[in-house]
Amino acid sequence: MEFDTIAAISTPLGEGAIAIVRLSGSNAISIANQIFHSPNGKNLFNQASHTIHYGHLVDSETDEIVEEVMLSLMKGPKTFTREDVVEINCHGGIVSVNRVLKLVLINGARLAEPGEFTKRAFLNGRIDLSQAEAVMDLIRAKTDKAMNVALGQMDGRLSRLIKTLRQALLETIAQVEVNIDYPEYDDVEEMTIPLMIKNGMWVKEEIEKLLVTSSQGKILREGLSTAIIGRPNVGKSSLLNSLIQENKAIVTDIAGTTRDIIEEYVNVRGVPLKLVDTAGIRETEDIVERIGVEKSRQVLKEADLILLVLNNAEKLTIEDRRLFEAIEGMDVIIIINKTDLPTQIELEEIKQLAGEKRIVTTSLLQEEGIDELEEAIASLFFEGTIESSDITYVSNARHISLLHLAKETITDAIEAAQTDVPVDMIQIDVTRTWEILGEIVGDTVEESLLDQLFSQFCLGK
Amino acid sequence: MEFDTIAAISTPLGEGAIAIVRLSGSNAISIANQIFHSPNGKNLFNQASHTIHYGHLVDSETDEIVEEVMLSLMKGPKTFTREDVVEINCHGGIVSVNRVLKLVLINGARLAEPGEFTKRAFLNGRIDLSQAEAVMDLIRAKTDKAMNVALGQMDGRLSRLIKTLRQALLETIAQVEVNIDYPEYDDVEEMTIPLMIKNGMWVKEEIEKLLVTSSQGKILREGLSTAIIGRPNVGKSSLLNSLIQENKAIVTDIAGTTRDIIEEYVNVRGVPLKLVDTAGIRETEDIVERIGVEKSRQVLKEADLILLVLNNAEKLTIEDRRLFEAIEGMDVIIIINKTDLPTQIELEEIKQLAGEKRIVTTSLLQEEGIDELEEAIASLFFEGTIESSDITYVSNARHISLLHLAKETITDAIEAAQTDVPVDMIQIDVTRTWEILGEIVGDTVEESLLDQLFSQFCLGK
Repeated sequence: MEFDTIAAISTPLGEGAIAIVRLSGSNAISIANQIFHSPNGKNLFNQASHTIHYGHLVDSETDEIVEEVMLSLMKGPKTFTREDVVEINCHGGIVSVNRVLKLVLINGARLAEPGEFTKRAFLNGRIDLSQAEAVMDLIRAKTDKAMNVALGQMDGRLSRLIKTLRQALLETIAQVEVNIDYPEYDDVEEMTIPLMIKNGMWVKEEIEKLLVTSSQGKILREGLSTAIIGRPNVGKSSLLNSLIQENKAIVTDIAGTTRDIIEEYVNVRGVPLKLVDTAGIRETEDIVERIGVEKSRQVLKEADLILLVLNNAEKLTIEDRRLFEAIEGMDVIIIINKTDLPTQIELEEIKQLAGEKRIVTTSLLQEEGIDELEEAIASLFFEGTIESSDITYVSNARHISLLHLAKETITDAIEAAQTDVPVDMIQIDVTRTWEILGEIVGDTVEESLLDQLFSQFCLGK
Repeated sequence: MEFDTIAAISTPLGEGAIAIVRLSGSNAISIANQIFHSPNGKNLFNQASHTIHYGHLVDSETDEIVEEVMLSLMKGPKTFTREDVVEINCHGGIVSVNRVLKLVLINGARLAEPGEFTKRAFLNGRIDLSQAEAVMDLIRAKTDKAMNVALGQMDGRLSRLIKTLRQALLETIAQVEVNIDYPEYDDVEEMTIPLMIKNGMWVKEEIEKLLVTSSQGKILREGLSTAIIGRPNVGKSSLLNSLIQENKAIVTDIAGTTRDIIEEYVNVRGVPLKLVDTAGIRETEDIVERIGVEKSRQVLKEADLILLVLNNAEKLTIEDRRLFEAIEGMDVIIIINKTDLPTQIELEEIKQLAGEKRIVTTSLLQEEGIDELEEAIASLFFEGTIESSDITYVSNARHISLLHLAKETITDAIEAAQTDVPVDMIQIDVTRTWEILGEIVGDTVEESLLDQLFSQFCLGK
């Protein structure tokens, strides 16, 4: 396909050593050539693909030097978008990179929409839709495991599985066509129904297997909303600090990385915890006071995991009991803290109140019990399966809902095939399943959906 | 020189399309080669310099794919550091880029200190110290003009001038040597003193010219600390908002750029205003109440520019008068706001209180007078000279203090030459001037100073 030439800042904004302005499209090289001056007067059109060139960007109107740059020249189709791509590496300041972007826009490029580079990679057939979505998941990944899921998906793991399923469905559809075209052959019909049931059952099973991974995949991708609750002074802040200190490893073991950006996410054994309302916990300790307030209940309702902290050195209070009521039916881990002090709390009653909920005892002061707590968190959601790298995870909400839909329609088709419904009626459901699965990889997908999907990308990708 | 191989994340941290991990040193290529797998099994050692290669990074211990990357190969000496440089372009997520960095560190690179790449460019003789400092100024530039100053300095503008001055000093030193070695030639001494005075005077004049630009250069580089003061409800917040709205152009006219990062800086006709304590103004309007407090006085003292806002529709109050006292002797623009309402304020008294301070009338509500205010701000510090791109600005505090020192020593030398001091005594001052100027470009500079200078750089540069 032929598109206009787009440009965007492709590195995160802020102060850094290097920033990149990326151009893609049939005029990418000619636009770059207009503004790029190398010390020995290179013409970019005469340069080989995948080469790097040093020089200055010059504003042809004012003849002023705009920046000192390294320019990467990549000619299509062996590029990210399959189009001609030019990446201008400039100094990583805000003024600098905006200046370079302005210059390429003035010289004929159009500002790219969010995700437009990846969209072109998709529209030009280099990657399918699930691979394109994985690109964004990869950038947003909060943990190593989430990144591995995204890398696998980007590599086409899910796509290949979906394609195999669609191939099986296509076979039965072809068989039905034969059946309809040559109704005089009885044995065709005899073959068609069993094939339909067999292939349908297999597709359904595979979809179910995928859906089993979806809740874990979703957690890996989006993080586990976690609320720490408890009365004042039971140790909520200490718990938060312990989790952050023990688990800041992914990012902050490397000097110079910014804590703020990810502070909200804590990586507990590969499970990204997204700590909800942590500012509130740290500053005011007033979650309990607000427990009657609708908003606090909302936080609890939206949490995937609740860590309820109790004080080992005090008897249970009315507030504690109210908290137990508030979290009924939720995924909760009960933490009895301050085991360094003499036990006053009614352990038997807690066991009753807890029911099947897991109880962990800690002394956050003496750094005891944190390992056990982390193990409890990880096993609550993954039961060890998280370690397996062979699983194809489904993590994307769009994919999950399409898989649910596909499961429904293929179940309808199987049930119909098992009764006396005519094959051409069953074929409608099989075809619909084939179409729904196609939406995952983008074979059968509407323009407006595409626009919506790619608009969620970050700029410059 | 021979150094170990260093690595760092060279793009700003955050979520973006692309991030770069940069390696520099004699093992850069071999480290990259260990972990880089291209689809057709390329050996990086056999590739030409300044070429780009697609492939995956693989952890050799686990055989797991770590990232999909584009790798830029640049062999020394034609690189930023003059060493072998490898830039790994990976996906711009926090996990992704940290994973890549970890992998290269495990495989033998050392985490670079802030500024260490630029330091190597300096130590390996590619750039001098003032050029190295300009690299950081360029990244931190808040306005186009500040970036032009940095670009000029990076290009060696200041360095060339300093070298010319030092050359002139060296001539006189050489002359003195001749004088000392061959005291029998009377005419040598006769030549020496006038040459010393002539060259000395010229050097002094050039230093003075540079120092004239220094206050402006410093403002361009660091921004003008600006405090908006006034009683409650005179329009301080409106003024702040007007300045931000009118001047957000540098950054926020381009979609997707982050306001937060630069919100503190407002670009008024090329003058970067750094708005001091703006949060305070916006939230509490209580600067006046706190005017008696020591801390507020401190803010005023540290401000380069004070915008005092008065209410046209009310008579002057005691508070207003106290504010006039507090800002005595400072750079102030007085803003009489709310000219849309009938004038109650004592204009004659204000003129008296203002003395030589400029008075601007505005109706921020009706968006009147803002142009005039901006013109007043710009002219207060630049008087039109800011537009000239021919000036070599000195903007760096280190350079400015060295220039002051050099001016002193050369003045001493000239004065000595004009009296009867022996030439070899004068020579000490001339040599000292030559040394001081050398510190600017880094010819005569101590190791510990270098460490301190480069540690102010951002990581990965």
